[in-house]
Amino acid sequence: MEPQQAYSELVRRYKERSTMDSIGSVLAWDERTYMPLGGSAHRAEQMALVARLGHDMLTAPIMGELLQAVENSPLVKDPQSDAGVNVREIRRVHDRAVKMPPKLVEELARTTTRAQQVWQEARKADDFEAFRPWLAKIVDLKRQEAQAVGDQEAPYDALLDEYEPGATTREITKVFADLRADLVPLVAAITASGKKPRPGILERDYPVARQEVFGQAAASAIGFDFSAGRLDVTAHPFCTGIGPGDCRLTTRYHPQHFNQGFFGILHEAGHGIYDQGLDRQHYGTPLGSAVSLGIHESQSRLWENQVGRSRPFWEHFFPRARQVFHAALAGVSLDDFLFAINDVEPSFIRVEADEATYNMHIILRFELEQALINEDLAAADVPAAWNEKFRKSFQLTPPNFALGCLQDIHWSMGGIGYFPTYTLGNLYAAQLMDRARQDLGDLDGDFRRGDFSRLKTWLNEKIHRQGQRFRPRDLCQRVCGQPLSHKPLLAYLRQKYALLYGI
Amino acid sequence: MEPQQAYSELVRRYKERSTMDSIGSVLAWDERTYMPLGGSAHRAEQMALVARLGHDMLTAPIMGELLQAVENSPLVKDPQSDAGVNVREIRRVHDRAVKMPPKLVEELARTTTRAQQVWQEARKADDFEAFRPWLAKIVDLKRQEAQAVGDQEAPYDALLDEYEPGATTREITKVFADLRADLVPLVAAITASGKKPRPGILERDYPVARQEVFGQAAASAIGFDFSAGRLDVTAHPFCTGIGPGDCRLTTRYHPQHFNQGFFGILHEAGHGIYDQGLDRQHYGTPLGSAVSLGIHESQSRLWENQVGRSRPFWEHFFPRARQVFHAALAGVSLDDFLFAINDVEPSFIRVEADEATYNMHIILRFELEQALINEDLAAADVPAAWNEKFRKSFQLTPPNFALGCLQDIHWSMGGIGYFPTYTLGNLYAAQLMDRARQDLGDLDGDFRRGDFSRLKTWLNEKIHRQGQRFRPRDLCQRVCGQPLSHKPLLAYLRQKYALLYGI
Repeated sequence: MEPQQAYSELVRRYKERSTMDSIGSVLAWDERTYMPLGGSAHRAEQMALVARLGHDMLTAPIMGELLQAVENSPLVKDPQSDAGVNVREIRRVHDRAVKMPPKLVEELARTTTRAQQVWQEARKADDFEAFRPWLAKIVDLKRQEAQAVGDQEAPYDALLDEYEPGATTREITKVFADLRADLVPLVAAITASGKKPRPGILERDYPVARQEVFGQAAASAIGFDFSAGRLDVTAHPFCTGIGPGDCRLTTRYHPQHFNQGFFGILHEAGHGIYDQGLDRQHYGTPLGSAVSLGIHESQSRLWENQVGRSRPFWEHFFPRARQVFHAALAGVSLDDFLFAINDVEPSFIRVEADEATYNMHIILRFELEQALINEDLAAADVPAAWNEKFRKSFQLTPPNFALGCLQDIHWSMGGIGYFPTYTLGNLYAAQLMDRARQDLGDLDGDFRRGDFSRLKTWLNEKIHRQGQRFRPRDLCQRVCGQPLSHKPLLAYLRQKYALLYGI
Repeated sequence: MEPQQAYSELVRRYKERSTMDSIGSVLAWDERTYMPLGGSAHRAEQMALVARLGHDMLTAPIMGELLQAVENSPLVKDPQSDAGVNVREIRRVHDRAVKMPPKLVEELARTTTRAQQVWQEARKADDFEAFRPWLAKIVDLKRQEAQAVGDQEAPYDALLDEYEPGATTREITKVFADLRADLVPLVAAITASGKKPRPGILERDYPVARQEVFGQAAASAIGFDFSAGRLDVTAHPFCTGIGPGDCRLTTRYHPQHFNQGFFGILHEAGHGIYDQGLDRQHYGTPLGSAVSLGIHESQSRLWENQVGRSRPFWEHFFPRARQVFHAALAGVSLDDFLFAINDVEPSFIRVEADEATYNMHIILRFELEQALINEDLAAADVPAAWNEKFRKSFQLTPPNFALGCLQDIHWSMGGIGYFPTYTLGNLYAAQLMDRARQDLGDLDGDFRRGDFSRLKTWLNEKIHRQGQRFRPRDLCQRVCGQPLSHKPLLAYLRQKYALLYGI
């Protein structure tokens, strides 16, 4: 076959597989937002079928033949040309998929769909025992996956690679160790300062309907397009880009807490802006797809934290918040509010943690996951191991499973290897924001006026439109002019907390 | 292959195809409830892929081989045995699908998905011209479908057969003519009576949130299980049984009209009770599937009208309605309310029509559809033809397209041949209710106590659990002891209106 013809057919088939995956995204979104509980078993069947068909499309022998026909041609001589990128990345996922036995793929899909329902119930009932066999089963399946994919330095690398192509346990361990070494004294200095915000400000009545309106307005202001997306309620918030013109944010509201709903929405909107910024012309191919979860997370963290917890942002939004939540915020000053939303305090729940201690939650999970996959830890021993590590990092003991090892949905989804990307996101967000400020000058002035368009456009161009043209490590180097580092995040946190805590 | 082995494989494959179809149901539900407008084009791609794969599964040559291997075996000697029924009905849909060119299937799916969005916009803008080319295209595709399926007496039969297996244009024309001959003088007598209810009762403030709660309570009372279903808002209400444990009702509310929301919910709950009553053990096979749209509609009409507009029903619910809608219903008597919800008055919108004139709306569409399919009528001439027929039947001229030929979603969905099943549903509902009263005795006493369980259980057993064991015509004969007839419906209407209008 002519290389050009082979390439066209390769792309056509890969796009069809992307459409199949996107059908799975609709099913998953529905499962976590509106599906009645009774539909769980049938949904598992549907998800398993979609997973199997998507896997079949990707692993069909013709895909290997088409790849070979293109790979030996001048079409891909430039590895950063459109064809070069698409062929490189299709080869990567094709090879990975070919190594996965179809039965394992289907069993993973079926198991994790059911396990998510079990996890929801188990968390509600604070019953680890109900979830334990599902966790054990999932770890076993993921271990099989790591073995099947093989050829990495560590089994955990094989899982990591799915979310963060090219990243290794070794390099992450190093960056996380550097980060932790600097974080621990920073948190200690904050605690020693004796200063505390008045967190009660955030724990007043924030009517859910108003939170929704206010959160949507903020998401819209930073650049999320609601004519091509929506916002719904779920237990564990997520964002899913279903396809061009259809990106779904979810959140959960606490009627007596401001943070959960609002920063959740900003966070997911950051993901959504990435999805909406992908190149539609290349939809369904690597060039029109997000590059990694770490970079994806950098977009959500950038909007949630770097922008959304900054003083300039609230110089614009706080007067508006006071109008919407007048009962809660009457008489509250901007300074008090800013301090409250930037409170640093060791706590049990990762998704509610501040920007400093958050990363210690991730490092804990990163270590436990490696132990599980390396068979150094059994599912039954997770609660004890969790609590022991938690005490060491936070000087606190989780009083129950819901505040401990049952808090996250990820393991029930089979997402082992996923957690480290959250802290990678924090690291990348700080690096990108540094660079954006160098490129664009006075961003704070924009934010004070409620104008986020220059930053959004910069991200569109530097990150979103690039798709998978470069691997995350190279994208960081190209855009920021430096490799992944813990320093920009630390510098950002030190500067912020120096002002707030006088340290 | 052993017949038993062939049968197992046939059923396994057919179930997989049913799962694929059920994925299409989720996509369709989402499209009509929550999908952002921007997602329309991509949803069309998803739907087309699902339609094509479902069609491939059904038409795979192996399916024909498996059918043959079983059909010549003793396994299916009894045509009403489990295997006999499943093989007969799989053969029917397999043959129909094999005759359909894959390109036509995909084009229908893609066209109708887009056309539904166009129709929504066109209706809103009252712009028939925007919808016209889509209607023309759909009629053309459906004509191709009729030709491809072939071998019926009339091309329209081929379309009808998809919704009402075994029904013919000829027999429906006859029953509808009988019905019309008796309806016209009945409606004339009502008009001549000079009596009128106070319809204003129903046009007061009925807060939407309360309508939702009240409607859900009623749906629950008649037997719809909300742990295995839900209720959402849409433009053109429908019910979709996605799979075991997951059935979705939709409705739309008018804040100043009681009927649309409430009777819409009862109607869709009637459909939902059928879906929830199917035999789960046979899910995905003909034995676990609804038999026809006409019988499906008989279930919705029975609960909406025969039960939901009856005096005993409201003897139970009216005191409750007065509590929930106290501002609207204070001082309103049960008699006045009953008369208002049973008002007979020629009107433009089919879904808001009373039980008597409703069927004249259907007969009009039945005639126009035949003319379109027989090429006696062009899409461009639909508005004129519609209005002329409407004047003849109703002595009214639609003032715009939204109140005329743009009111229904069906044509945009490619549902030509679907409308007659609504009136078939009314006919079957009256016949079934007659029989249920003979079998069960004093049902009115049950209803007065708010107890609908005996009727629901009777329907579960006589209709829902039967799946497709018998064709609709035979099911009617078996359950009711008589063939399809217009007489029970007429007798029911005459009795009801004699009391209300003194005729």
